[in-house]
Amino acid sequence: MTIKANNPALKSWVEVPANSDFPIQNLPFGIFTHNGNSARVGVAIGDKVLDLKALHSLGYLTRLQFTIEDFDCNILNKMMRHGKQGTRELRNRISELLSAENDELQKNGHHCEQVLYLQSEVEMLLPMHIGDYTDFYSSEQHAYNVGCLFRDPNNALLPNWKHIPVGYHGRSSSIVPSGVDFHRPKGQKKPPTVEVPVFGNCNLLDFELETAFFTYEGKPLGESISTEEADEYIFGMALLNDWSARDIQGWEYVPLGPFLGKNFASHISCWIVTLDALEPFRTAGPVQEPKVLPYLEYAGDKHVDINLEVIIKPEGGEETTVSQSNYKYMYWNMNQQLAHHSVNGCNIRTGDCMGSGTISGPKESEFGSMLELSWKGTKTIPMKDGTERKFINDNDTVIMRGFSEKDGVRIGFGEVKAKVLPAL
Amino acid sequence: MTIKANNPALKSWVEVPANSDFPIQNLPFGIFTHNGNSARVGVAIGDKVLDLKALHSLGYLTRLQFTIEDFDCNILNKMMRHGKQGTRELRNRISELLSAENDELQKNGHHCEQVLYLQSEVEMLLPMHIGDYTDFYSSEQHAYNVGCLFRDPNNALLPNWKHIPVGYHGRSSSIVPSGVDFHRPKGQKKPPTVEVPVFGNCNLLDFELETAFFTYEGKPLGESISTEEADEYIFGMALLNDWSARDIQGWEYVPLGPFLGKNFASHISCWIVTLDALEPFRTAGPVQEPKVLPYLEYAGDKHVDINLEVIIKPEGGEETTVSQSNYKYMYWNMNQQLAHHSVNGCNIRTGDCMGSGTISGPKESEFGSMLELSWKGTKTIPMKDGTERKFINDNDTVIMRGFSEKDGVRIGFGEVKAKVLPAL
Repeated sequence: MTIKANNPALKSWVEVPANSDFPIQNLPFGIFTHNGNSARVGVAIGDKVLDLKALHSLGYLTRLQFTIEDFDCNILNKMMRHGKQGTRELRNRISELLSAENDELQKNGHHCEQVLYLQSEVEMLLPMHIGDYTDFYSSEQHAYNVGCLFRDPNNALLPNWKHIPVGYHGRSSSIVPSGVDFHRPKGQKKPPTVEVPVFGNCNLLDFELETAFFTYEGKPLGESISTEEADEYIFGMALLNDWSARDIQGWEYVPLGPFLGKNFASHISCWIVTLDALEPFRTAGPVQEPKVLPYLEYAGDKHVDINLEVIIKPEGGEETTVSQSNYKYMYWNMNQQLAHHSVNGCNIRTGDCMGSGTISGPKESEFGSMLELSWKGTKTIPMKDGTERKFINDNDTVIMRGFSEKDGVRIGFGEVKAKVLPAL
Repeated sequence: MTIKANNPALKSWVEVPANSDFPIQNLPFGIFTHNGNSARVGVAIGDKVLDLKALHSLGYLTRLQFTIEDFDCNILNKMMRHGKQGTRELRNRISELLSAENDELQKNGHHCEQVLYLQSEVEMLLPMHIGDYTDFYSSEQHAYNVGCLFRDPNNALLPNWKHIPVGYHGRSSSIVPSGVDFHRPKGQKKPPTVEVPVFGNCNLLDFELETAFFTYEGKPLGESISTEEADEYIFGMALLNDWSARDIQGWEYVPLGPFLGKNFASHISCWIVTLDALEPFRTAGPVQEPKVLPYLEYAGDKHVDINLEVIIKPEGGEETTVSQSNYKYMYWNMNQQLAHHSVNGCNIRTGDCMGSGTISGPKESEFGSMLELSWKGTKTIPMKDGTERKFINDNDTVIMRGFSEKDGVRIGFGEVKAKVLPAL
């Protein structure tokens, strides 16, 4: 498959700073407002946002099947209803219009002013109406670490783990975009030292370094999506911080899984990087042994090499990087996750969000949660301001960043950032 | 609180057959289509449906704050955005218009023809856009039975069960209305007799007898709803069949809870009975010992007396009632469930669906699932056609019905019904 917009030789007439996450090979989609105008669909290019509503109304997208309502909208779902082929053509057309070799838009200075804004001057919103949110648990190192911490290092992985991309349903109402601060949750917990549960602030607030993918409309209830078909149902990816209240989670999660320990807030980055833009960074996954059941087998490279990092920024302090991981460390890939999710006939809809689960690499510095980094609070993580962390403090800001890089092209996700305010 | 529409002395000029679920004291809301017209909001009265779009356009609802768009809509969510006070006034006004003592509508025969249809001539649709679906596990007898079957009869309830209304997130995409048949799910399972998991049809397909409640818009992310406030955030209730694939569930659910064993289909009844209409049937719940934490304490009668039954109808055969239970058997009530769900700041939205969990009464004949009725397949349940069941067979139709009754007034839910088609 050749996707025109991915050509590494392309340059844009819009200035793209060195190390920008958003060269012309990326062109991620998001929802923004500018100057009090209604929310609309935008595409990131360098430090700018391209306004697709304005671009459409000026006649630059008329060859495509999209209407202005697809872009004059506070969610990407309408645009995504045109499916993989539709959004691919759209991205190719935008690439064409932004290419240095094309002067259609470039030559009309007054049009350029109407369709390009500085990212620093727009507000980014939650990009999607998320119908359902599913979170997987697909990093072997993470599952192993959790098994060591809470069960038996000699039997760290549960018996089903290498047979099933284990997942569970999360809460979509509390998924918020990067930049929305939130309050430390309260809840019921039973510390090992007390006889009866108590109510109070979460004391073990943690991040989980994850990515998420977002789906196109799937098949009718009862039908399944194969690993081979899965790519056609995946629009793109974002960074996900799946906040976790470890003390609340620990007391509640047997037997039906995490609930209030997770659903107080989950943050996603605001630009959805298309799966198309990530194609050049596909890489092989681990050999899966024992062999998976046929419905989970897949062909080709279906993992993706995405560098990931987690930063803690104490109030008034500087950033300390506490984890550097990579999405390629996943045991189960998106195709397997989606095939498993739908193998029983479960239907997916436009804008469903599927989290990877915490992405931990093999080295200690690559662990994707404070639970693992502090090894359940038995170690401390030094901050550059001289303080230490086992979990996340009030007024800490947690930032996650991610990018793929190859052949001089860097496809970035921007960041997902949120500050923890004291409990209400 | 006096709710005018609940007056047991009221009679309607619309004929209401004896033992109808829908006397003038009920007035449940639903979404229907008639004669190929667009979907709209309706209210059940006797064997008829009252068309609220038509009623509004004829000027009968002008004193209220609702617009025609609230009713000219394929979901109840728009109407529900007017909140408890708004929908209460609406129900009171409809009660007035349908009352035998009021001739405003009654006297205009040509209007009556435009606003009333036979239920048998309309198609009922999913009544709600369900943002998030949560399922609780709040019947003590059910939790005890499951504990006996899968763990230890002497320690059947897990340590957290009497402290927390245990719940988990379900899948909203696969919630469908009564009457939508579905295919037996397939999936991965590991019967105790084999070494490695296998893929195939679910062999242990089960119903779960539940009710669900639906919410109004809640508070902003970070705030909580108290047990005292909870009633103001609950619109109404329906019957819920939370289908379960026991063999798939058994292999997947440790450690993150049920996933593909549940999300292939959940059916709800089509008429949402308002919490207001159920007020006369409030009843005391069990004494909760050990004492619950203060945020879970509640005042007044918050349980509801609703008779429930489950019927299996084999292909071409007659109905066999396999369970008769009651919603009053719940350990945790809706107010406690909602207070718990939001105590960590998790936000709820208009149309969220919260399932009770399987409602099992203390007698064997009151158990709310085949898992319990057949005691994990060790007993058989006789059908009237001479066959037997341990779980649900292909082409069986499972029907659940429910009603409250007191002082000669019967407030019913209609039914939730679905046929199991063979696996695809």
